[in-house]
Amino acid sequence: SSPSPPPALLEKVFQYIDLHQDEFVQTLKEWVAIESDSVQPVPRFRQELFRMMAVAADTLQRLGARVASVDMGPQQLPDGQSLPIPPVILAELGSDPTKGTVCFYGHLDVQPADRGDGWLTDPYVLTEVDGKLYGRGATDNKGPVLAWINAVSAFRALEQDLPVNIKFIIEGMEEAGSVALEELVEKEKDRFFSGVDYIVISDNLWISQRKPAITYGTRGNSYFMVEVKCRDQDFHSGTFGGILHEPMADLVALLGSLVDSSGHILVPGIYDEVVPLTEEEINTYKAIHLDLEEYRNSSRVEKFLFDTKEEILMHLWRYPSLSIHGIEGAFDEPGTKTVIPGRVIGKFSIRLVPHMNVSAVEKQVTRHLEDVFSKRNSSNKMVVSMTLGLHPWIANIDDTQYLAAKRAIRTVFGTEPDMIRDGSTIPIAKMFQEIVHKSVVLIPLGAVDDGEHSQNEKINRWNYIEGTKLFAAFFLEMAQLH
Amino acid sequence: SSPSPPPALLEKVFQYIDLHQDEFVQTLKEWVAIESDSVQPVPRFRQELFRMMAVAADTLQRLGARVASVDMGPQQLPDGQSLPIPPVILAELGSDPTKGTVCFYGHLDVQPADRGDGWLTDPYVLTEVDGKLYGRGATDNKGPVLAWINAVSAFRALEQDLPVNIKFIIEGMEEAGSVALEELVEKEKDRFFSGVDYIVISDNLWISQRKPAITYGTRGNSYFMVEVKCRDQDFHSGTFGGILHEPMADLVALLGSLVDSSGHILVPGIYDEVVPLTEEEINTYKAIHLDLEEYRNSSRVEKFLFDTKEEILMHLWRYPSLSIHGIEGAFDEPGTKTVIPGRVIGKFSIRLVPHMNVSAVEKQVTRHLEDVFSKRNSSNKMVVSMTLGLHPWIANIDDTQYLAAKRAIRTVFGTEPDMIRDGSTIPIAKMFQEIVHKSVVLIPLGAVDDGEHSQNEKINRWNYIEGTKLFAAFFLEMAQLH
Repeated sequence: SSPSPPPALLEKVFQYIDLHQDEFVQTLKEWVAIESDSVQPVPRFRQELFRMMAVAADTLQRLGARVASVDMGPQQLPDGQSLPIPPVILAELGSDPTKGTVCFYGHLDVQPADRGDGWLTDPYVLTEVDGKLYGRGATDNKGPVLAWINAVSAFRALEQDLPVNIKFIIEGMEEAGSVALEELVEKEKDRFFSGVDYIVISDNLWISQRKPAITYGTRGNSYFMVEVKCRDQDFHSGTFGGILHEPMADLVALLGSLVDSSGHILVPGIYDEVVPLTEEEINTYKAIHLDLEEYRNSSRVEKFLFDTKEEILMHLWRYPSLSIHGIEGAFDEPGTKTVIPGRVIGKFSIRLVPHMNVSAVEKQVTRHLEDVFSKRNSSNKMVVSMTLGLHPWIANIDDTQYLAAKRAIRTVFGTEPDMIRDGSTIPIAKMFQEIVHKSVVLIPLGAVDDGEHSQNEKINRWNYIEGTKLFAAFFLEMAQLH
Repeated sequence: SSPSPPPALLEKVFQYIDLHQDEFVQTLKEWVAIESDSVQPVPRFRQELFRMMAVAADTLQRLGARVASVDMGPQQLPDGQSLPIPPVILAELGSDPTKGTVCFYGHLDVQPADRGDGWLTDPYVLTEVDGKLYGRGATDNKGPVLAWINAVSAFRALEQDLPVNIKFIIEGMEEAGSVALEELVEKEKDRFFSGVDYIVISDNLWISQRKPAITYGTRGNSYFMVEVKCRDQDFHSGTFGGILHEPMADLVALLGSLVDSSGHILVPGIYDEVVPLTEEEINTYKAIHLDLEEYRNSSRVEKFLFDTKEEILMHLWRYPSLSIHGIEGAFDEPGTKTVIPGRVIGKFSIRLVPHMNVSAVEKQVTRHLEDVFSKRNSSNKMVVSMTLGLHPWIANIDDTQYLAAKRAIRTVFGTEPDMIRDGSTIPIAKMFQEIVHKSVVLIPLGAVDDGEHSQNEKINRWNYIEGTKLFAAFFLEMAQLH
């Protein structure tokens, strides 16, 4: 195999990173303190998002990068409101024609977080407990973005030549479906992306607490809202109870018709386009290190739907799933309000796998719900809308950067990585593959129990700092292999 | 029939009321401005409740009443919190042994109200538009309580002898199930209630816009919470979608098993204790004036479950109904959060009719949900709890005060009243009948479209002022009949 990178330089970079780890944690604390929530369409959060992108642009400029903050125009919301979309950062560091060019994607917006939801610490104050850095966005995705920036800063600080040219594309709307990003990537494919050789994303998790992984595929996601309306106002359940087609009765029947108690999706035709399972594919799941007992405990779940590692991995990676997220417009607070909600919106989404197609799924779900609703002969109005449609993605694992990533992981962690796929959705991966036609690799840094999207999200200091070394080693491996 | 009251006095009282109506509206505005929400267990609202009771006690004292504010101790909440219960007011005006003694019940707490829920005006600022007084509590129940007090104040201002002795029992927790009231009534039955001959409640609505009514029965209510828990934290639906027994899937199946699309309750045995229907009873519904078209329009409902007046009234009054109120703990805001809620609580309630029994219903519902849940063999934990249990109530309509109320309505409104029952729950009615053994009559003042418990609740100025005259005329009729 090709020569490995000069050990002396690697040692110096690793030492620098160990020495400056508290600074790296402090910067993450400052970034987590910015409430860059892109999901709740509220002006205050949007201003925080703009502040977050400005801080990131400034950080990259101080590294010596050429930085452009691209204006993305306004976002039209279902309720008629219009909010500005935070700018996307396109940055470049080095354009040496003899070196490979690696483009790093990340996002700096976060999911909603509310102390009242069961957080043990303030979600926007990074709090270290036993080496765990608790805070919204710590692992999804501010930690990994900073780890990549820290790795670059190590070479700069040591006045070492960057082994590769590095580009950044950093967005602020990933949690809300990467609004308008696709148009930008389309527009830039022959400009910003023209010189790019490889694309790296670090926006998901390992499947174990201690063993690193490389991800070569993710599920897609189609997000549905089904509204049932009798009238805008609520009713008093004493004064009207018994004479109405109640919207909540319709809605729970509609939501209840989507999935059975074993997690099987009941929408006709939904499994038709799923790739057939082969013996060879089953063996790849056997090779994965997944301690089911540890996974159950770390997830604080008593029992999964399945009892074997292979079935668990397949139902997370290569089969679709349907989750009901909640209902907007009904009574959702503590206490005993006796109300009949007049207009309710049920929210659910389907994780898509190769070769499911977003528009086909939209038609199947809409037809199914209209069919169930028509059988109820309810006088209410039902409207189904798919507010988000993101295709699944899968890569070729013999590409150069997959080899470089494996070697870097061996160097830093002294082990082979788990070759995994991810149940969650990273639309940018599919986007790069289809528009920019460049190989994409996902190199996650966070441990399986980091709790992204949930209360008490965290990243371990060990993952954050060793992850910084991993990216530095990856730069050097890529320089060798290119 | 017995002699009617002296016309001259009646005229003088009615004129006084007409002349002072703006003052009466101003006082209602001040009372509505107090956010006395008893449903949301939040300290700020509890303080407002205490202020509301103090204002009422002061008003009664200025009328010359002897007033006691009874301390009701603390309320233990499901989440372990403890909040003080607002005092109950017991007041007395006159104790002339030659006169009948009428006790008026009212409540000054209100349902939650949030401008963001679709109110066109600030719910806590009484706003008059085309003779409609919009505000939370305007009709449920601050308007009617003030109408009774205004009627008494008319006699006082005109230095007229009160035709009857009047007692008041005013609580601050009706919307939260009249917490601890039953114990108080029990304790006072041989003291405060000993001299009482008749009990009047005005806490529901007419069934038409313009025609007054007298109510002789109400449904009961049993409020259920069904919790399904996998773990306290939420999950990311990408990272965990497909391998969990998802609590929301369990919950919508449980809620969906309770009632079918025609409003029929599917809990086994639930209809067993419902009183059989007789020809005679059906005829009482035929006599009611209910303009179905007007009722549909005023309710802004396209189509009811039933098309005849008789079926509508029966399903509101003499049959049980089941309404699903909402879900606590799931994603309930605008936007597209991709979460699997870890712990969710579904809320529904069943309106009870004679001779359904609260504890029997509790057993039937619990057994049914446990049965449905066991068939799902889900590894989640399910807990069913009945947080509120109120029996239905029905009176004898030949009692003295029913005759007095009919005559007073003829005098003020020039029409026979609709003899109606109410689908909503007024636990105090049942309580008085069973504990104090005194005849109870419900004399509502509000029109059918007042929207109690809903956004844009209101009482018409006409109902509020003519209602004040109605109570004054009722005092005089009671003096004659007693």
